[in-house]
Amino acid sequence: MSPSPATAVIDAVDARLDALLQDRDAELVALHEDLGVGAQQLRTFLHGGKRLRPQFCWWGWRAGGGRDTLQDCAPVIRVAAALELLQACALVHDDLIDRSDTRRGRPAMHRAEAKRHADAGWSGDAEHFGVGMALLLGDLALAWSDDEFVEGAAQLGALARAQPVWRTMRTQVLAGQWLDLQISQQELHLVDPAAALHTAETVILLKTAGYTVTGPLLLGAALGGAPAPVLAGLQRYGTAIGTAFQLRDDLLGVFGEPEQTGKPAGDDLREGKRTVLLARTRQHLAAAGEDAALRLLQDGVGTASSAAEVDALRGIILTSDAPQSIEEEIASLVARAREEVRALPVANTVRAGLNEIADRAAHRTA
Amino acid sequence: MSPSPATAVIDAVDARLDALLQDRDAELVALHEDLGVGAQQLRTFLHGGKRLRPQFCWWGWRAGGGRDTLQDCAPVIRVAAALELLQACALVHDDLIDRSDTRRGRPAMHRAEAKRHADAGWSGDAEHFGVGMALLLGDLALAWSDDEFVEGAAQLGALARAQPVWRTMRTQVLAGQWLDLQISQQELHLVDPAAALHTAETVILLKTAGYTVTGPLLLGAALGGAPAPVLAGLQRYGTAIGTAFQLRDDLLGVFGEPEQTGKPAGDDLREGKRTVLLARTRQHLAAAGEDAALRLLQDGVGTASSAAEVDALRGIILTSDAPQSIEEEIASLVARAREEVRALPVANTVRAGLNEIADRAAHRTA
Repeated sequence: MSPSPATAVIDAVDARLDALLQDRDAELVALHEDLGVGAQQLRTFLHGGKRLRPQFCWWGWRAGGGRDTLQDCAPVIRVAAALELLQACALVHDDLIDRSDTRRGRPAMHRAEAKRHADAGWSGDAEHFGVGMALLLGDLALAWSDDEFVEGAAQLGALARAQPVWRTMRTQVLAGQWLDLQISQQELHLVDPAAALHTAETVILLKTAGYTVTGPLLLGAALGGAPAPVLAGLQRYGTAIGTAFQLRDDLLGVFGEPEQTGKPAGDDLREGKRTVLLARTRQHLAAAGEDAALRLLQDGVGTASSAAEVDALRGIILTSDAPQSIEEEIASLVARAREEVRALPVANTVRAGLNEIADRAAHRTA
Repeated sequence: MSPSPATAVIDAVDARLDALLQDRDAELVALHEDLGVGAQQLRTFLHGGKRLRPQFCWWGWRAGGGRDTLQDCAPVIRVAAALELLQACALVHDDLIDRSDTRRGRPAMHRAEAKRHADAGWSGDAEHFGVGMALLLGDLALAWSDDEFVEGAAQLGALARAQPVWRTMRTQVLAGQWLDLQISQQELHLVDPAAALHTAETVILLKTAGYTVTGPLLLGAALGGAPAPVLAGLQRYGTAIGTAFQLRDDLLGVFGEPEQTGKPAGDDLREGKRTVLLARTRQHLAAAGEDAALRLLQDGVGTASSAAEVDALRGIILTSDAPQSIEEEIASLVARAREEVRALPVANTVRAGLNEIADRAAHRTA
């Protein structure tokens, strides 16, 4: 897959997703002529993702001893494609939960399906049809993801090794989404900052470290038959990079440039997202006795809507040490990940790949 | 599992579901202390189902040559439990799509979760929290169902045989729900009765024949390593009984007794469900030139709400030949299924089991 493994993996996964969704589309249309559209909607939805999970899966496979040959690659690419379908389910359902209208610059699935209803001139509630269809298309993506994982892993004779990783990863991401939804139901000032930090850190471990990095990495490693010391090293690397990835996300959610992130400036503040950055800021302000600033922050997060209000909240966060301490933590997590990579008994090309993707995840601007 | 296989299978599946959900609960709580409740909510939700799918799976296993010993049974019961978890996902998500408030006489999952929000005195939108949680708990049930299937089938060394059946069944039930949702978006009088009948029959084949009967039956048979003639015979038996089951459902949805069905009288007429019974009635009325009755029916289905309005629609349906022709079709489907059973190269106890469950499915009153 040389010379540029990242591009080659992305291209191979995209080609597999195209083929798979074309097959499923044909199956559905054979059942009833009205069942077109769905697989195509998922294909459109999948377009433009960063394909980070497939890349971590690929480097896990290589670190675990998997070979870079075309014959071995096809089933690994199937498992990597399964990760993208799982992510499609997570995003389609997440947009329902968050009532988000857009995703990757295009309409969210429930919006796209509501529009299809309106365009067809059907009677009934277009909005609710959109919700129902997004729910079912997310379920289809989850079921198809699973078929693709089982069949890919079985082709490598590695299902018994890979299934426990797959199982843990899926339960964790759903548990993370659940916790994320639940914690945002309590008014901010009623939640002790230390407890809020603990929960936000757990959400990071479940949704980002576990699901985005460690899960795909260990899945690839299990497919490759990695020995225990490699698995342990990858686990530590993944936890470090996954945490750095999410902390970067926290910073981008408050300070990122809309042209680069594709989201409104300070989106997390408008949405009231309960991030580690927010919990740390609250801790710093409380420790410094900045009670007035703390109250303004707690009242404004989740209710601020104008640019001026969001700017004021940003200003409060900047007066605390939290952003700086998080930047330092990201740097230290990347350094720790690099040390883990150095200690892994793997080829230098694999080391280079793991370091490159770690840098990209931790220092992205979008 | 003698002397009463039905009860023994139900008890074994219930015990397995209890153990499984207890394990998952412990896993979740270990991740974060707030993640209790979910597995218990699913356990409550699963309570009181008829467990038809596990019973068909069991008789498929026995017809396929699987033995009735405790050692072999445990993994088959796991696959049967997986079917119930899959059904839990389908029902939880279906209730969201249909905006149903109750299920099996208890609150639907989104209602139960909305109540949990209100009871906790959280801020934010309790209704929407309920929707989000029901979505995630349905997803968890789908993921756990799949883990349970893969692990059970692998224990029997039968995953390669069973996976294609599992895959087809899941895609079909989701496709059936999708089609069911989509067809109800067009005003009834705009849909040609013949086209409506074709679609309603496809929904039956996907959602009921395929998912409720043939899928579980063939899954069990695949686990048991059934030879091709047995698979073909079970497929024909399943299609007949699955169709009879749904046609009975159509009749109960219009003429059933509320005390027995647990639903309001004429529930399908209030909801505007696009059944085979409705499509046949429209065809009969059109062929008989009963244009006034046809218009009343088409205007009233989905809009009728009072008992008198529903009674009037019932009366129109009774004036057509449709209910009688559907009763006759059910009888003929049961007879066909019995012929298939007679021709199967299986033990007499298995024949008796298949006939008994066929009668129960076709002649139920609830």
